[in-house]
Amino acid sequence: MNKRVMLARRPEGEPVDADFRLVEEPVPECRDGEVLLRTRYLSLDPYMRGRMSAARSYAKSVEIGEMMVGGAVSEVLDSKNAAFRKGDFVLGYTGWQTEHVCPGDGLRKLDPNAAPVTYALGVLGMPGQTAYCALLDIGKPQPGETVVISSASGAVGSVAGQIAKIKGARAIGVAGSDEKCRYVVEELGFDACINRRTEDLDEALKTHCPEGVDIYFDNTGGPILRAVMRQLRLHARIAIVGMIDQYNATSPPPGPNLRQMLTMRATMQGFLVGDHQAHVAAFERDVSAWLREGKIRYREDVVEGLESAPRALIGMLRGKNFGKLIVRV
Amino acid sequence: MNKRVMLARRPEGEPVDADFRLVEEPVPECRDGEVLLRTRYLSLDPYMRGRMSAARSYAKSVEIGEMMVGGAVSEVLDSKNAAFRKGDFVLGYTGWQTEHVCPGDGLRKLDPNAAPVTYALGVLGMPGQTAYCALLDIGKPQPGETVVISSASGAVGSVAGQIAKIKGARAIGVAGSDEKCRYVVEELGFDACINRRTEDLDEALKTHCPEGVDIYFDNTGGPILRAVMRQLRLHARIAIVGMIDQYNATSPPPGPNLRQMLTMRATMQGFLVGDHQAHVAAFERDVSAWLREGKIRYREDVVEGLESAPRALIGMLRGKNFGKLIVRV
Repeated sequence: MNKRVMLARRPEGEPVDADFRLVEEPVPECRDGEVLLRTRYLSLDPYMRGRMSAARSYAKSVEIGEMMVGGAVSEVLDSKNAAFRKGDFVLGYTGWQTEHVCPGDGLRKLDPNAAPVTYALGVLGMPGQTAYCALLDIGKPQPGETVVISSASGAVGSVAGQIAKIKGARAIGVAGSDEKCRYVVEELGFDACINRRTEDLDEALKTHCPEGVDIYFDNTGGPILRAVMRQLRLHARIAIVGMIDQYNATSPPPGPNLRQMLTMRATMQGFLVGDHQAHVAAFERDVSAWLREGKIRYREDVVEGLESAPRALIGMLRGKNFGKLIVRV
Repeated sequence: MNKRVMLARRPEGEPVDADFRLVEEPVPECRDGEVLLRTRYLSLDPYMRGRMSAARSYAKSVEIGEMMVGGAVSEVLDSKNAAFRKGDFVLGYTGWQTEHVCPGDGLRKLDPNAAPVTYALGVLGMPGQTAYCALLDIGKPQPGETVVISSASGAVGSVAGQIAKIKGARAIGVAGSDEKCRYVVEELGFDACINRRTEDLDEALKTHCPEGVDIYFDNTGGPILRAVMRQLRLHARIAIVGMIDQYNATSPPPGPNLRQMLTMRATMQGFLVGDHQAHVAAFERDVSAWLREGKIRYREDVVEGLESAPRALIGMLRGKNFGKLIVRV
């Protein structure tokens, strides 16, 4: 049987259990060109909250009654597609389900000897590529510049800050607990990390960015963005990568005052990884090398079982995860 | 005697008469290397409100007791500088005064036969260059794209919209009266103009930009910016050129919700003309030609006498001027 998590209804504000529904369905037969997959790891990412909403976005919403979407690493249990063999691990955008049949196109074979297969959902996958491309294409860090990164212990922010360091910039993180802040500084090597729940953001930014902020890598929006706007340096660059602060909002909150955009002649750009496919090869080459050389460290937060996925997603939107959130299915 | 308008105190909110002080001083003797100037036309521009404030900005504030700054066209009454002769017209950043002595450096001689000398304060000066560079460098209009311009009948907006049309884009203005809107469409050739005081901005933008807004040339910030953000098209560009909506604000108002920056992968950039000096020659060549060819029309709003300057500036910040505001001194 295939267990699947479906969207039961559209959340109002923060999602609740009843917005999801777990169903079981027989697994159909594997036909010519198809593969039978057993999901091993499902990625949970903030963008999924957007798909649960009917609001216009860069991708189609999940309809009510449809399966929740998401990237996953699966094991091939049976193959009638010449490109795959039983026992292969594959990456695909196969959604919240346990065992299913699908065509082979859209699947990418993974080499378990090159890196842990779960890395394809994080540091070597969409989140890592987001960090790499948004930082380098929009932020363009120069040696000695100061980069501020929100959600600094998360899947994207942790990689962005480490790349900033590799490029010779100063990296100042913002995270949601003292434990996360310690990890960001001591394990990841950021220059400092601000606890957004306990510190005065304006004061802390002034302390750690005495000459101002050259680059802001924004995963959150909200109060952190407002505070960073007040500390921009001349010709600052702001990459708008995520807005987790408002994904659960029922009406759009106001944004930051933009006077400093004018005063500092700053640039702000919204980022979607799909726009930056030209840099996939450079990303894979560089980040693989940095992982091998120990220049990038990476942490996963693993929850067990597909039935845990809804609560884990709800928790992530509150900042409860610590590192890249994945579900071991 | 030289009449000068001094900053008497810093305005709280909207400036009032008592924030300015008119003084008379004897004109010193003209010495070697200097010129004696009689101000003919003083430019009034929104940025001057910023100079009256102590807040950090891209230029130094005017100190209390100092003369108000500004660009002016003057006639040379006497010259002990070989570069200038009696009767020459010159452009300089000489401030709010009537007759004074200054060194010749920093003055630019004007050719009254090439264009009306007042154009050096507007369409062929800083406002025109602002329109040209912000539209072309940040907006990068492509044929068929839709450009929205706030303060569309003003010194900057009127030129920006006409250049958008020259480049093959659609130009939709926003202005503060039906009379200004008629002028923007009938005289300047914009495709449409929205009266921001009487029309519903969201509805009007949907009507005139059915496929969304590719470029927003923002002179105002405030409600117009908020409304345009809701109509952005994929990969939209926003040039933040002015924020007249908040120049009189006593505390920074919130800004627009920025979710659409992410959804539409839009780019926003703050503009200051001084950053774009590399394009001065192209600006002068192109805009002079367009004026000669009748492709750019231009309107001045002239008030009489230096003593009228404070009230004219106060009025401009309320949108009372109609066209480029200058004082005939």
